[in-house]
Amino acid sequence: MIANMAADWLPDWLHQRALISPDRLALIAGSARWSFRDLDQQATQMAHRLSALGVGAGDRVALLLRNGAPFVVVVHALSRLGAVVVPLNTRLTPAELNWQLADVGAWLLINDEADSAATAAARDLPDLRLASVDAGLHLRPYTQSTPATDANVMLSKAKHLSGMPETLRFAQSDKGGFPLDAAHSILYTSGTTGYPKGAVLTFGNHWWSAVGSALNLGLRADDRWLACLPLFHVGGLAILLRSVIYGITAMVHESFDPVDVNRAIDNGVTIVSVVGAMLQRMLAARGDKPYPPSLRCVLLGGGPAPRDLLEDCARRGAPVVQTYGLTEAASQVATLSPEDALRKLGSAGKPLLPTELRIEQEGVVVGAGQVGEIVIRGPTVTPGYVNRPEATAHAIRNGWFHTGDLGYLDEEGYLYVLDRRDDLIISGGENVYPVEVEAALRAHPAVEDAGVVGVPDERWGQVPVAFVKLHDAATLTEPDLTAFCYTRLARYKVPAHIRFVESLPRNAAGKLLRRALLESWP
Amino acid sequence: MIANMAADWLPDWLHQRALISPDRLALIAGSARWSFRDLDQQATQMAHRLSALGVGAGDRVALLLRNGAPFVVVVHALSRLGAVVVPLNTRLTPAELNWQLADVGAWLLINDEADSAATAAARDLPDLRLASVDAGLHLRPYTQSTPATDANVMLSKAKHLSGMPETLRFAQSDKGGFPLDAAHSILYTSGTTGYPKGAVLTFGNHWWSAVGSALNLGLRADDRWLACLPLFHVGGLAILLRSVIYGITAMVHESFDPVDVNRAIDNGVTIVSVVGAMLQRMLAARGDKPYPPSLRCVLLGGGPAPRDLLEDCARRGAPVVQTYGLTEAASQVATLSPEDALRKLGSAGKPLLPTELRIEQEGVVVGAGQVGEIVIRGPTVTPGYVNRPEATAHAIRNGWFHTGDLGYLDEEGYLYVLDRRDDLIISGGENVYPVEVEAALRAHPAVEDAGVVGVPDERWGQVPVAFVKLHDAATLTEPDLTAFCYTRLARYKVPAHIRFVESLPRNAAGKLLRRALLESWP
Repeated sequence: MIANMAADWLPDWLHQRALISPDRLALIAGSARWSFRDLDQQATQMAHRLSALGVGAGDRVALLLRNGAPFVVVVHALSRLGAVVVPLNTRLTPAELNWQLADVGAWLLINDEADSAATAAARDLPDLRLASVDAGLHLRPYTQSTPATDANVMLSKAKHLSGMPETLRFAQSDKGGFPLDAAHSILYTSGTTGYPKGAVLTFGNHWWSAVGSALNLGLRADDRWLACLPLFHVGGLAILLRSVIYGITAMVHESFDPVDVNRAIDNGVTIVSVVGAMLQRMLAARGDKPYPPSLRCVLLGGGPAPRDLLEDCARRGAPVVQTYGLTEAASQVATLSPEDALRKLGSAGKPLLPTELRIEQEGVVVGAGQVGEIVIRGPTVTPGYVNRPEATAHAIRNGWFHTGDLGYLDEEGYLYVLDRRDDLIISGGENVYPVEVEAALRAHPAVEDAGVVGVPDERWGQVPVAFVKLHDAATLTEPDLTAFCYTRLARYKVPAHIRFVESLPRNAAGKLLRRALLESWP
Repeated sequence: MIANMAADWLPDWLHQRALISPDRLALIAGSARWSFRDLDQQATQMAHRLSALGVGAGDRVALLLRNGAPFVVVVHALSRLGAVVVPLNTRLTPAELNWQLADVGAWLLINDEADSAATAAARDLPDLRLASVDAGLHLRPYTQSTPATDANVMLSKAKHLSGMPETLRFAQSDKGGFPLDAAHSILYTSGTTGYPKGAVLTFGNHWWSAVGSALNLGLRADDRWLACLPLFHVGGLAILLRSVIYGITAMVHESFDPVDVNRAIDNGVTIVSVVGAMLQRMLAARGDKPYPPSLRCVLLGGGPAPRDLLEDCARRGAPVVQTYGLTEAASQVATLSPEDALRKLGSAGKPLLPTELRIEQEGVVVGAGQVGEIVIRGPTVTPGYVNRPEATAHAIRNGWFHTGDLGYLDEEGYLYVLDRRDDLIISGGENVYPVEVEAALRAHPAVEDAGVVGVPDERWGQVPVAFVKLHDAATLTEPDLTAFCYTRLARYKVPAHIRFVESLPRNAAGKLLRRALLESWP
């Protein structure tokens, strides 16, 4: 018997999909409305353009692109060349951009236009080349800020760097497709402390994530998945890959607009990925109109949703699937089905089929109800971080990935995510989980959003303080809200101070940035 | 960065499924109606019973079991112990059984009861042990035919053979689940010539087959897949594994009864796997009654279906997905969607997403319309045959599996399967594909079934001869049918002789046994 010949790679997803279902609608983005045949052709043309700039196998190519068809095409084109996609957050400051580009070792940055951030980064990193892509998918090397690099120089340098032959090398033609253990992309995690870390996600990580999601959510030929989160985020990028793997339509909105999202749902979107604040705005914009039965899944990330939001969704026929996801696990780790949403309020549900999940305290697995670190393993989990052997070794121990998030499993195996371990507040020796306090605050009808952090206190070591955003037109005093908390929380968990604010700092994935809150205190 | 830690195994499918969706209905078989929690518990108990008999990791355990709950439980229990499932055809003669048991090296045969075939095999193979399982899932070592083997001797011998420790070793507890490259089962292929070959199918082969099928057919939480084909066949076994991987209900019928199948469909079966003759009998038994919309897929194997059958199915709302499958590829290789059934009459459609397919003539890939050998590669393909290094090396060359089937791709990439290469008739230097002649014969309204083989001829080398089964009550003469063929086939393809028969020999998978026809000539 010979070795299993073919379990470690797959045919180029997009190419195979275009062979199997060329006429199915692949992408709706702006004015583009492309079949899989169209998308495959666009990716091939873009791969040729990128190859002409010198991009080849193993190169790390950074993207600073808004949501749109160019983003989608560049991602598939880079995979076809065996290059690694490094999608950067378009909100980065020039300094942050500069830092991530240097850390990842990208020699090419593709942006929508020669914006000041990209130009500044190029100036600081003399080896960095820029190219911009327009809506017509033209790729232009941007040479002004780095006078020495005309297209020829760039080409020869790039060929030198990557040892590329003159002819185009499609991964699929020599190597038989996508090796599952090769890097597909590197995504920088927002990281609550220290510098961001670039998590490598392999083709296999993304593939298994897509499969695990389909085995959980089901799959229908008429599915249409709306991406209104940034595509540079794992939750957005995953939609592009699932579209190709499943043979379903990805619809890409340039940015989140609640009215546009509602309209897209009325016009046949079956699945939409959102975070809580987005869902709240969608409901507010919708009035009393129910959602159509074709909407079969509202995939809700960014933390547990409050009961009134879930009840409102249930009333309007929006089936909410809450999920706990990680960049390092190529998005979803666990999900809660709509039927369990109210019975298991606050839970992130059960792990995906390929993913094992347990709770550990100092390396020991603990039983139901006991809080510890959420630890996972499975084929969606990153092999590690770029340039961070220590962080990688710290995160992945004995084959298990340590998420740094705290949580517990109930008697039925449902996961409850509490907080980042770093966010834990220890007050008078008691553990206070900010998320629990925030849920109590959000249960007040006047409260729209809340964030809790621990601040130093002479007597207790730390005490919780709260930042609260009220609903428009709502009024509430600190003593009233404190009194409300006393009815729901043990005394030591009640915020020592409450500050009313206009908005709470959240990242592109809807994750509360507690560090920013802490820095704003007092 | 460390090596990808977890892409080469998965958690025990059934165990993980029972953790995720314990209360979903897993199995309906006879009087059993089990949730995944029930099935998981049954598998655990059976694993203990098998372990007590000495079954351990790496053991090849043969099954001679009818369709039913015991088959299902034993399969999952063996996987849990790391043992390899060898499901044998219950129609084998004692001599065939004996040969396969010796070839595969099984020390234990599990049967429904101490039947004469199993007893005979045990007598001829002194190292073989027997155990029978009843409907109540009791496992009894059968010691009468081999007096030396009481349970204790058997236990010690088995422990000696497999080097097992006293305690139960669940693959999942020490090794973290199912290694994808480990053998899950060995299935003997019916083989048109020579002795059957035992194709090894890994956990990965089955997993990828299940995933490829779901990416093609879609997946719904309320799916219920009916197995009325034998479970010892890859098409039946695959349903059991998909049930667990997908979290859907498998319904198992002990044998095929068209009225029972129709009733099951009326009661919520959404997918059913059949071959053409079964489908014909289902339609005949149903009268004019349409099928309910809940029936979303009739997966039809065993060769292309005639137009009138497909039209009849379309009229009654039975969506037929024709498929080309192989034991060596863990079942489906390509499928044709119902929308294409009439437009692409006779085609087996497009490959599954993880499977690449091409047509070769003597090692060279040929273009659209050209007939050659069907060659595939992908993660569903067997690593090889047991004890057959030459057959394995002949089948798997340069990473591609050579199916021995002839076919071609049309301009749009749709596969048309012609025949086993061994069945090809060469008449006066011209290639005659039996399947093409059979299709022409079946197009006659009086013809129910037809089989064509080549017989030696002094003038032409070979000529085609036909075996034809008429519909009940139909009458037709050889000259009339020959004249009909002349209107549809080139002269050299028209059968030189036609013999009318009561039935055609087909195996359990509905595949025509042309060798049996040839042996019956003249």
